[in-house]
Formats: sequence, structure tokens, C-alpha cells
Amino acid sequence: MIILDGKKISMEIKKEISETVKAIVAAGKPAPHLAAILVGNDGASETYVGHKEKDCREVGFRSTVLRFPDSISQEELLSEIVRLNSDGEVTGLIVQLPLPKHISERAVIEAINPDKDVDGFHPANVGRMVTGFPAFVSATPDGIIELMKRYGIETAGKNCVVLGRSNIVGRPMANLLSRKAYPGDCTVTVCHSRSRNIGEICAGADIIVAALGVPEFLTGDMVKEGAVVIDVGITRVKADNRNGFRLVGDVKFDEVSAKASFITPVPGGVGPMTRVALLKNTLKAYYLIKN
Amino acid sequence: MIILDGKKISMEIKKEISETVKAIVAAGKPAPHLAAILVGNDGASETYVGHKEKDCREVGFRSTVLRFPDSISQEELLSEIVRLNSDGEVTGLIVQLPLPKHISERAVIEAINPDKDVDGFHPANVGRMVTGFPAFVSATPDGIIELMKRYGIETAGKNCVVLGRSNIVGRPMANLLSRKAYPGDCTVTVCHSRSRNIGEICAGADIIVAALGVPEFLTGDMVKEGAVVIDVGITRVKADNRNGFRLVGDVKFDEVSAKASFITPVPGGVGPMTRVALLKNTLKAYYLIKN
Repeated sequence: MIILDGKKISMEIKKEISETVKAIVAAGKPAPHLAAILVGNDGASETYVGHKEKDCREVGFRSTVLRFPDSISQEELLSEIVRLNSDGEVTGLIVQLPLPKHISERAVIEAINPDKDVDGFHPANVGRMVTGFPAFVSATPDGIIELMKRYGIETAGKNCVVLGRSNIVGRPMANLLSRKAYPGDCTVTVCHSRSRNIGEICAGADIIVAALGVPEFLTGDMVKEGAVVIDVGITRVKADNRNGFRLVGDVKFDEVSAKASFITPVPGGVGPMTRVALLKNTLKAYYLIKN
Repeated sequence: MIILDGKKISMEIKKEISETVKAIVAAGKPAPHLAAILVGNDGASETYVGHKEKDCREVGFRSTVLRFPDSISQEELLSEIVRLNSDGEVTGLIVQLPLPKHISERAVIEAINPDKDVDGFHPANVGRMVTGFPAFVSATPDGIIELMKRYGIETAGKNCVVLGRSNIVGRPMANLLSRKAYPGDCTVTVCHSRSRNIGEICAGADIIVAALGVPEFLTGDMVKEGAVVIDVGITRVKADNRNGFRLVGDVKFDEVSAKASFITPVPGGVGPMTRVALLKNTLKAYYLIKN
């Protein structure tokens, strides 16, 4: 059994990006520049944006956080986006979600220039991804695909089960793994809350991507010997330790890891790959905007 | 066994649309107006555009065919689209494919205003459809969904196999049938040229959508008793009759119809539903543009 070490791989990718940025700057060009819009003062959003700023700093990107009060109107926010869309100094643009209730997330996302949409949430990027054109793929699926690629996981003709049909993980994963590409060319089955016989379906899978958000849903009896298991879940479960909790994935790790050929740990698997995916997209956007 | 009679249902839908158009016109408003761009003089394209004009006429839509020679430059074509995008009299806009090789189909499709894109080919429409937002769905998948709805086919929790992963049929069908909706909520498996054990996978399916373009691919032994079978294929096969050919689907009809609970014939199943879907979208676009 081999651990798919997202932490290690994400550090390698950061190093690669950082070297590219050094070369850009050495050539006298400005570094990629991520602008993040943060509305209100939600604690979790503050933390996420803080991580993004830190990650940018570490690879040499410029980053700007534009903070607006909860009271900002949708119109004001949209005009801010229009301004950033045409600001040549901003190469990537994200809006931290959730937004206050009086603002339509959909209107905001659709206002972002798809070529700066490094979160990959704009429907034009989703549509390009689904139809096999170059696109910004959202962070978690992009991170998973990259992890599979770096470990050389065989995918062509494999039976793959995706547990979950969310717009940010399950659905893009299913579309990516069924396309004519590597990683891809899988026979993909998407299971969700309305599916029957999930255990039986999983037991026939060569690759399982678990993204239901149900702690330890996937147990040993649901997995065949040699399966590749990607665990997207991450839930805080009360524990008798210093933090008072531990992080648990959608996979019962001890049981499943005994049968799997490759498996992601939680934490240290998909999480760090998701984080680094935003940096990959920001670099990609830089070349799109600058060239 | 019940025949899913696309011909009959499509005529019912045309009647409904035609009544809506009468009411629009009676209220003193202009009828919906489909503009179709036709480049060059490909015989098949001429035929398709001719059908579309006829269909429009039958339901009371206005339609305009804009013809351009093969020699038109991409720039000229794009500026024509920009003009039509902002022409308030044009409520739906399509570009008949294929285009001459010197013109990027992708650039042309992305130039169309997504709110007039009644073919549903713009990536923003694909992305909206995939993420569950209101969208123009391309004609064949939209026609199939409508047919399932009109016959009240049960879909929630059913195992559905989609044969084929094309951008215009297989992929949208898989996304639509797995969404949280009716028809939908299926456990969907997408099979394609790289899939193994297709026969076995199909034999477990409650619903099969065959869109491989391989005549009589799906045989009786691949289908379980009571399955719902949708045949998207339509291939001309040499025959000893007046036309010199007959139309054959992806399903071996005599064998499969003996086991199926519902099945589409070829011709007269998915084909007419595909044709009427463009009219449905054109009416929808009319309300989007006019309100």
C-alpha cells in the first residue's frame, strides 16, 4: 500500500512554481498577482483568505485582499469586479464565498472574467472543462487529478466510482475522469444520496473518490483488494486530545488502507493538493493574461 | 412494452408552442425570431437549416437564414454575431456547424450571447446545466429528458448506463440524469470506447441511453427484463429497398424490445424530439430576451 502524500507533492509543486516566478521576475516582468475579495468578517473566510495570502507569499506571487463591509450592495460589488477584470495588474481574481444573503453569488461569479477566474467557478470554465477545452478547474478536483498524475496511477479503462455529486467535487471529478485523457478514460459511476447498493457498486471499483462528507462512510468490506482510494472528506469529530477534536475523512482508514493499493491520508492528502491548485491556476492565468 | 413515440410527443409539443405563439401575437407582440447563420453550401447543412425554417414556420416563429460564402473571414463572421447579439428583433441565434476550416468553431460559439444560444453549445450554458442552473440544454439531451418526462418514466435511484461520452449527447445526458431533479437522481455510469465489460454493466441497468453511433450495438443479452431503452443512434445501412438504405439505431430493436418496458424506435423516437427541442429553446429565449 502506498500513501498518496499530498503534503509532499504540494511542496514539490510550490517549489516548481516558486522557481518559475523567480525566472519571471529575473526577466524584469511583474510577478503573478492574485486579488481576493472578502466581504464581511466571517471567521472561516478570514482563515481561508489568510492561507491564500501566505501561499502566494511563499511562491513569490503578489496578492491583494480587498475587504468590504457586509453592507456593500450587489451593484457596488459587481462594479468592483468589473474594475478588477480590466486591471492589467491583476492576473487572477477570486471572491471568497459565502457572501451576505442580499448578494447573488451566481451574479458575482458570472461577473468575473473567465480568464481570471482561478477558482474555476464561472460556468464558462465549468463548460469548457466538461467539453474538454482548456479551462480553470476548481481546486479540489484539479488537486486530485494532479496527485493521480504525479503517482502515475493507471486510469484508462478502470472502473471508477465517485461518491457525491457536488458542483465543487463529485461532478467535476466524474467529468474529468471520464474524458479521453490521462488521468481519465475511466468508466465512471456517480453515486449519491438517492443511490441504492452503494456498497456493491464500490466493491467493483478500481478507483474510488469519496466526497460525501460522511465520516468513515467507506468501510473495508466496500472496497476490493488493490483499489485506489481518494478521500475528499474532512470532518471534525470530538476526541479526547489537546484540540478536543480529530479530523476524519469519508474513509475508514485502518480497514480500507489494509486493502488499497494507493490511498490518501486525512489530513495530508487531498487538502494540501486543493490549496496548491489555486497557485497552479494563478500561474496559468498569468500566462493567459500576459501573453 | 411501450413505444416511446417521439413523433407523436413532438407533434403535441409543437401544438403547445404554436398556441403560445398565437397568444403572443394576439397580444400585439412580435413572435419569437430565430436567426440561423449558414456558411458555405454543404448539402447536409442546407437540409438541416431547411428543416429548422420549416419547423419555425409551422409554430409561427419568424426565422431568418443569413447565408455567407465559404470565403468569409472569422473576423467578419464574429462581427456579424456581435451585431445579431444586440439586435433586439433576434431572440434566438444559431450557427450551423460545421464551419470552414479557417474559422474556429470554438471562437464562434463563444461569441454568441449565452442568452440567445438556443443550441446550448456555449460553454456558459454547458456549465450552467452541469451545475444545476437554468440553461439552454442542447437539443438531443433536452429532447430525451422531455420524452422521459412525458411518459412519466421513473428515474430516482435507478441505475442508468449512458453509452458514449460525446459533448452533444453522452456527457450532457450523464450530467442531467445524475442531478437532483426529475428526470434525474439516477446512479449514472458512463461507458465509452475504453470501457471494459460493457455488456455486464448494461445488464445491471434500469435505464440505458445508447449514443455510440454503432449500429445494433446493444443486443438482447445485454439488457435486463423491464429496462427503459433510449436509442440515440441513427445510421444508414445498405438495404434492398426503394431508398437503397434503411435507418438503424444503436439498439438491436427486435431483441431488445422483447425485454424492455419502454423503448424508442428508430426513426420516430429521439430524432423528432431533438428537432422540437430547438423550438422549445427558442421560445424560452424569447421570454429571456423580452422580459
